[in-house]
Amino acid sequence: MKSPYPILVLVGGAAIGIATAAIAMSAQDNKPASPIFKVTVPDGYRQWQLIAPAQEGAPLNELRAVVGNTTAIKAYQRGAQPFPDGTVLVKLAWKHEQSPEFESASIPGAPTTVQVMVKDARKYASTGGWGFGRFIDGKPADEAQHRTCFACHEARAKARDYVFTRYAP
Amino acid sequence: MKSPYPILVLVGGAAIGIATAAIAMSAQDNKPASPIFKVTVPDGYRQWQLIAPAQEGAPLNELRAVVGNTTAIKAYQRGAQPFPDGTVLVKLAWKHEQSPEFESASIPGAPTTVQVMVKDARKYASTGGWGFGRFIDGKPADEAQHRTCFACHEARAKARDYVFTRYAP
Repeated sequence: MKSPYPILVLVGGAAIGIATAAIAMSAQDNKPASPIFKVTVPDGYRQWQLIAPAQEGAPLNELRAVVGNTTAIKAYQRGAQPFPDGTVLVKLAWKHEQSPEFESASIPGAPTTVQVMVKDARKYASTGGWGFGRFIDGKPADEAQHRTCFACHEARAKARDYVFTRYAP
Repeated sequence: MKSPYPILVLVGGAAIGIATAAIAMSAQDNKPASPIFKVTVPDGYRQWQLIAPAQEGAPLNELRAVVGNTTAIKAYQRGAQPFPDGTVLVKLAWKHEQSPEFESASIPGAPTTVQVMVKDARKYASTGGWGFGRFIDGKPADEAQHRTCFACHEARAKARDYVFTRYAP
């Protein structure tokens, strides 16, 4: 358990840590970013904790699930708003499809969009502190679509820090 | 970074580990268990990764989400069946409710049931290797309800190791 070179190990570990961070940054930089906001699809979001599922009726007919990073989950647990900087919410959406095994059940079909909200009060000051990204097959939707994000969140969810989704107990 | 008492630290750590395991076991033992199968609601399941949401039509009218422990998620990723011993799946369910902000959206209302499937091929050999638990407000449903679990999973999902839910991409 004792290392004869504890300082060397620490320095080596720090160097590897810095190199890893640099690689992660560069991978992030190369990812497709949304127009206006430059939001990307966060790594590992599919492992994030569920906030709530939802169903969207016609014409979209989707099943959805909103997940959040640790900052988001902690903010929901505290019940505190506004959400702190660093909060990231991701909405996964799929076509709503009949279950082949159960007449009364609908299940996710083909994925449709992945939508991202990132909180940075300073960077996104003109849109309530939120940056938005809407991705289809990993590619961002066009600028016109991104112009609609904040307008809708502002009109319908301003009192809840522009976030629709409540935590499902 | 060096401890002058590395052996003592190790022994002390092991003792704490054993004590912690003993406390966890005893807490588990005191939890309400399902009839027939003696399945309990697993600690921390609300933090588990989402497998898929679903919607259940009339008469239940529910939104649902199935989450899984690490063993379950790895099995889904490998695509291998049967699921290995130690797989635990939890289905959360809520009443399907109109979103107050969006006419076309439905969101989770009051929670209805938490349903658990635990894989242990030997312990549950007579029910396809699965133990079942259905909980309402944390209390297990009665034995009659638990008699229906395997019959339905066997009739409709036997070819998929008795599991309905597919991983939503």
